[in-house]
Amino acid sequence: MMLPFFRGSLIFLPPNSVTDALAKVVSANNHAFHQYTRGFGHPRLVRALADTYGKVMDRSINPNTEILVSVGAYGALFYAVQGLINPGDEAILIEPYFDCYEPMLKVAGGVPVYIPLKPEVTGKKTRSSADWKLDPDELASKFNEKTKVIFLNNPNNPLGKVYSRSELEMIAELCKKHDVVVFADEVYEWLVYEPSKHIKIATLPGMWERTITIGSGGKMFSATGWKIGWAIGPPYLISCLQTMHQNSNYTISTPLQEAMAMGMEHELPLIGKKECYYSVLPAQIRPKRDRIIKLLSEVGMIATVPDGTYFVVADFSNLDVKLDETSSEPKDYQFTKWLISHKKLAAIPVGAFYSPGNKHLAENLVRFTYIKEDSTLDKLETIIKNW
Amino acid sequence: MMLPFFRGSLIFLPPNSVTDALAKVVSANNHAFHQYTRGFGHPRLVRALADTYGKVMDRSINPNTEILVSVGAYGALFYAVQGLINPGDEAILIEPYFDCYEPMLKVAGGVPVYIPLKPEVTGKKTRSSADWKLDPDELASKFNEKTKVIFLNNPNNPLGKVYSRSELEMIAELCKKHDVVVFADEVYEWLVYEPSKHIKIATLPGMWERTITIGSGGKMFSATGWKIGWAIGPPYLISCLQTMHQNSNYTISTPLQEAMAMGMEHELPLIGKKECYYSVLPAQIRPKRDRIIKLLSEVGMIATVPDGTYFVVADFSNLDVKLDETSSEPKDYQFTKWLISHKKLAAIPVGAFYSPGNKHLAENLVRFTYIKEDSTLDKLETIIKNW
Ligand SMILES: Cc1ncc(COP(=O)(O)O)c(C=O)c1O
Ligand SMILES: Cc1ncc(COP(=O)(O)O)c(C=O)c1O
Repeated sequence: MMLPFFRGSLIFLPPNSVTDALAKVVSANNHAFHQYTRGFGHPRLVRALADTYGKVMDRSINPNTEILVSVGAYGALFYAVQGLINPGDEAILIEPYFDCYEPMLKVAGGVPVYIPLKPEVTGKKTRSSADWKLDPDELASKFNEKTKVIFLNNPNNPLGKVYSRSELEMIAELCKKHDVVVFADEVYEWLVYEPSKHIKIATLPGMWERTITIGSGGKMFSATGWKIGWAIGPPYLISCLQTMHQNSNYTISTPLQEAMAMGMEHELPLIGKKECYYSVLPAQIRPKRDRIIKLLSEVGMIATVPDGTYFVVADFSNLDVKLDETSSEPKDYQFTKWLISHKKLAAIPVGAFYSPGNKHLAENLVRFTYIKEDSTLDKLETIIKNW
Repeated sequence: MMLPFFRGSLIFLPPNSVTDALAKVVSANNHAFHQYTRGFGHPRLVRALADTYGKVMDRSINPNTEILVSVGAYGALFYAVQGLINPGDEAILIEPYFDCYEPMLKVAGGVPVYIPLKPEVTGKKTRSSADWKLDPDELASKFNEKTKVIFLNNPNNPLGKVYSRSELEMIAELCKKHDVVVFADEVYEWLVYEPSKHIKIATLPGMWERTITIGSGGKMFSATGWKIGWAIGPPYLISCLQTMHQNSNYTISTPLQEAMAMGMEHELPLIGKKECYYSVLPAQIRPKRDRIIKLLSEVGMIATVPDGTYFVVADFSNLDVKLDETSSEPKDYQFTKWLISHKKLAAIPVGAFYSPGNKHLAENLVRFTYIKEDSTLDKLETIIKNW
């Protein structure tokens, strides 16, 4: 058996608040729950989203004009790219970036402009995702009159970086100066480990007007298979996404939207409290994070301790593993193959999150995921002990 | 209250075979049912589709390379258009056509080429959807070296026309001669009234190779809100759609795919028998069809008796209704407004299914739907009696 430490495919059930809701939807024998609903989002779900994010962002959100429900965050990203990018428009991609951004952009004729986060190497046994930073001058140099959007994945997959307020302010200033829109991919917004705090760039002064905030019900409720996501923003941006939705999927699953709305209504009064599922989940995962970091460092890998997400990036360059230095295949790709064949461990080369020209920046890095049952982590421990 | 005789939004529950399946999926407490599944289609669903359509089409279908699961038939149409149409390619649209074809085509830069079905007016009190025909010479004149695809909606929404074998052969010959692909939108394939028979154009000699057959689980199981559809065809065509899927939605709802697969497995051995849901549904709806036709003719409308779908197109030109002949608004649009304000009846102007240049062909036609509860049809009867 191969240990699946590579995908974010969850081993959890969603919380009862949503599975019970789905059971209720089914047993209600109400035909409306099985037939077409409003195209831009089921009325009960867009209301629940407006209430939830109204509270989080401390503003009033119009459920009909400022929200679009999509087929996962993935679908919202697609609508955003298709709705706003014209051929020749430039889009800034911060490396490492979620792998779908670039092909989506290219399908729309957009031109990717890359800027890598760079680690401040400290010589410590572990690093922190906060050590990975944008160089302000380099970032400024990427903006010009062709720049249409910047993709901001916060918390970042794969690093787990959670942007600080001052980092967000720097990005925001450049966006305002150059009239650039932010695609804020915040699917891991709730998966943040204290004392880190997730700040939505859309809440910074002048940024609501130019931000499309993208979220995922799959990540929020550990129900990735439900594929319900959303985009939130000002009406003149959301309407561009709505047009794409109308010409591609038109409407999204009614029973799952109804059930997810019920789940959000259940959590709404609990937001900020320990019992809220949005707080329960990171609290459950934190010990798993700490455990995998300890295990990885026991064999000599240097983990980047993530402030968010359920991923960890580890540097394997200290390991005594023979890789082919002359091969055209990057070392991180070679190492993941070695991990599978020699250790039955699956991981992802971090180079997969970089543009061709910058893949070398990740040549010593692999990504693991730790949203796994403890029994699976036990098996990892056995592998590590016998390393 | 306004009577909703205009939309295909169903008043039925799906059959127990699928709602019970969904209840089982939820109560199974199996995390895999709530997490990501295979992107191109949940393994159990693509197998069930291959089995079902293998039987219907009498051929062996590869579940992994010849099927793609999409967000409804709508989503499959979108993938087909985006995956196969390049800017400047021509696509033949048979009027009246389902309203999404044209904007989807234009988003892809395709050029629509229109050809209307024309009714053989017989002077009878009712007409038949089979009276609406393509002129063979006119159709042939629409094909040229730029023609990439033809959209074939069979059974046709709004007319209810079910194409005969000889009509399909004529279309197939032209497609083979000019190397053209068919987008066969067959979402109403099971909603066909005896003695009419639905023939899939993909089963004609040499046509599998050039046809993308598009179906809808929502229409198949009266569960339009589940938004599960599919495209079936040869691997070199389906792979183009798969690429689009990968860059837009990536994967579709796992729990609903699992439940729909169970529903299809249940029906599989029953196909062709009276008890099969695919036969139960048209048998249930047929009396409703006959009833609405009778009611419409009682007030002097000439209905086109549909061989398929749950729509009926009626000619209102014999009615004594004052419409503004000088208005730029077509008479069918005016008449639907009159129906709402004077009779509290909602219908759709058939001009909505025509290109701007041909809207006049539908100026005396409106479309009603009759997939309604008998109590709703009773209210229609009252309106008609007091006309
Ligand atoms: C950064 C990021 N964005 C978007 C997505 C897609 O989310 P969804 O499953 O809601 O489509 C993922 C999924 O892994 C992700 O990691
Ligand atoms: C002709 C036709 N094609 C496609 C569709 C869309 O089907 P689905 O709900 O599966 O997306 C419809 C829905 O009314 C239709 O009438």
